[in-house]
Amino acid sequence: MPLGIALLGSTGSIGTQTLDILGRMPDRFRLVSIAARNRTDLLTRQVEQFQPEIVVARSGFTLDNRSVLPTPEGLIEAVSHPDVDIVVAATSGHDAIPAIIAAIEAGKIIAIANKEPIVCAGELIIPLARKHGAEIRPVDSEHSAIWQALRSGKNSEIHRLILTSSGGPFRNFDRAALQEVTVEQALKHPSWNMGKKLTIDSSSLMNKGLEVIEAHWLFDVPYDDIQVVIQPTSIIHSMVEFVDGSTIAQLSPPDMRLPIQYALTWPDRVPGPCAKLDFTTLRTLEFDLPDLDRFPALRLAYEAGRKGQTYPTVLSAVDEIAVEAFARGELSWIGIANLIETVLEKHDPRPVSSVETILHTDRWARETARSILPDLA
Amino acid sequence: MPLGIALLGSTGSIGTQTLDILGRMPDRFRLVSIAARNRTDLLTRQVEQFQPEIVVARSGFTLDNRSVLPTPEGLIEAVSHPDVDIVVAATSGHDAIPAIIAAIEAGKIIAIANKEPIVCAGELIIPLARKHGAEIRPVDSEHSAIWQALRSGKNSEIHRLILTSSGGPFRNFDRAALQEVTVEQALKHPSWNMGKKLTIDSSSLMNKGLEVIEAHWLFDVPYDDIQVVIQPTSIIHSMVEFVDGSTIAQLSPPDMRLPIQYALTWPDRVPGPCAKLDFTTLRTLEFDLPDLDRFPALRLAYEAGRKGQTYPTVLSAVDEIAVEAFARGELSWIGIANLIETVLEKHDPRPVSSVETILHTDRWARETARSILPDLA
Repeated sequence: MPLGIALLGSTGSIGTQTLDILGRMPDRFRLVSIAARNRTDLLTRQVEQFQPEIVVARSGFTLDNRSVLPTPEGLIEAVSHPDVDIVVAATSGHDAIPAIIAAIEAGKIIAIANKEPIVCAGELIIPLARKHGAEIRPVDSEHSAIWQALRSGKNSEIHRLILTSSGGPFRNFDRAALQEVTVEQALKHPSWNMGKKLTIDSSSLMNKGLEVIEAHWLFDVPYDDIQVVIQPTSIIHSMVEFVDGSTIAQLSPPDMRLPIQYALTWPDRVPGPCAKLDFTTLRTLEFDLPDLDRFPALRLAYEAGRKGQTYPTVLSAVDEIAVEAFARGELSWIGIANLIETVLEKHDPRPVSSVETILHTDRWARETARSILPDLA
Repeated sequence: MPLGIALLGSTGSIGTQTLDILGRMPDRFRLVSIAARNRTDLLTRQVEQFQPEIVVARSGFTLDNRSVLPTPEGLIEAVSHPDVDIVVAATSGHDAIPAIIAAIEAGKIIAIANKEPIVCAGELIIPLARKHGAEIRPVDSEHSAIWQALRSGKNSEIHRLILTSSGGPFRNFDRAALQEVTVEQALKHPSWNMGKKLTIDSSSLMNKGLEVIEAHWLFDVPYDDIQVVIQPTSIIHSMVEFVDGSTIAQLSPPDMRLPIQYALTWPDRVPGPCAKLDFTTLRTLEFDLPDLDRFPALRLAYEAGRKGQTYPTVLSAVDEIAVEAFARGELSWIGIANLIETVLEKHDPRPVSSVETILHTDRWARETARSILPDLA
């Protein structure tokens, strides 16, 4: 019997790569639900190919001879269908949080690809998942690497998690050069081919900062025991250092389909489309440590994570506003971290007791950021 | 209740490091039996410190107020004691094979550090261990690394084992330079501090060749799926490449106490004396492929392993004669592989049906090697 899949965010980068994997393994997986907000032409083709039971799209979108549920409300139905075994959460933003909570309460497996639910709602979601015995499986390559490496020991035997980062295109830029960074420069990622937001976040190391917060929640490891190490070619996706001194690393050519496939087939590993390492061409792996002075976004993420409560929501929301402003040419690259720091300082935190708290904080953070933006531009 | 340990070969490099670990973990381990052939002054001190029940040494050696059993016969008693849970086999040569077989038949756990029992008697020992449900745990850093990495998947999901090698001190020597190699040069190992035989074997890559044969038996992987990769600093101790394209590697600063400790504490990982990786100083990991033309010993080991039967015994025995002759200045470094190849070509193989077959082959190989030696010198 193939496992039933609900895919939230089917037209984004993770969504299309998830369908690539599902399409190759029809004996293992069947698409039960599909949801997408954008690129509805692509969604139409996906529905034709995979014939899911439930389609969720933004209201107004129609399909011949099929009912379409509106997003975000329809997401709950999409994940709750009795045939769904695994929910792949690959939407961006907070839209999917209520659906993820519904999936957890229904005891589904959640393969989580977008950062916000864990970064902002980790305090809510992780204890809930534990209570309901719902499995949360990482899809991010770094967290997948840690998850794979962790099989070589127990969680209680972790000494440190070592999250690797490409360092972004500016890792060797000095302060003066960082002042002059252009949007074009920030959009050139050295090893991964990703969306615009993610690429700019990689250039500031904010992406890595958000991953540190995710790792904290996913693996229940204190921030002091999570270290970021630069590995420019993104071959080592992350490592676990155990108490005995042994470090286990996961390596592969950068290809998101590997962690997606692993999250779906776990505990099995099956042949798939991903290339293996080639030691006839792999000559060197370099390591470096991040410079928190030149890359203050990473420092801010650690601080927001350590403070907890609604701070990570502010971090994530203001980063989105800041990156958009930078991409529009309204904020310098250095201004991204400045804007985030300024709003974090103004924040009056509260415990993450509900989705409403997150949404309320998110709105406050965005409005505050927008109001400050002209002063920093 | 501490686990009972029988340590065969207590005064060698692995033996003393095993006692270092045991001495640090008296709540976990108790030395029940100790055996050593050489360095009896050290053995005396070890017996005083650890107070084992059984002492095995070469005949003629005495201790005040204690009985001492003669080696090799006493080894059987040493491993068979009812309080023994784990046998650490760290002797060199074939002496321990009958004791290892006795330990397997008694259902003990065998932590195996010397190569000969697996290389020469793998055909005999591995099926026997399977039959008796006796666990064989690797102690070699490379096989320990594979064993640790394998926890991240199933044996049936292995695509390839990647055994790393430092490449030895001559990895960048051309053929002309290899003709002129001196004993002093061969004894300088770039990253490990080991005995003379092992260091010279590392310089010829014979050490790696023997490990390929061990890996074949320990992990039940065909020779075509075992690749040797040069990693000069010996930080990555080996890797497993799985069918999905994911490669899991084990890294640590070179320290044999880590794999020894892991073989003893498995499935637990516990804090011990071994240093962890330091990313403030670790800057690069380099990779290269071995050149089987310049390092024919590795090619010969693959060939002997593939042919099976008594060929690996010949390989191992002649290598010992060749290394001794090289160390005495009676054979060139290039002559080591030449001597091995010549004797392998003369060999008339037979199935490894008993220890006697191995001992008989071993004697034949040594005699043949010695008789040819003057022609190659």
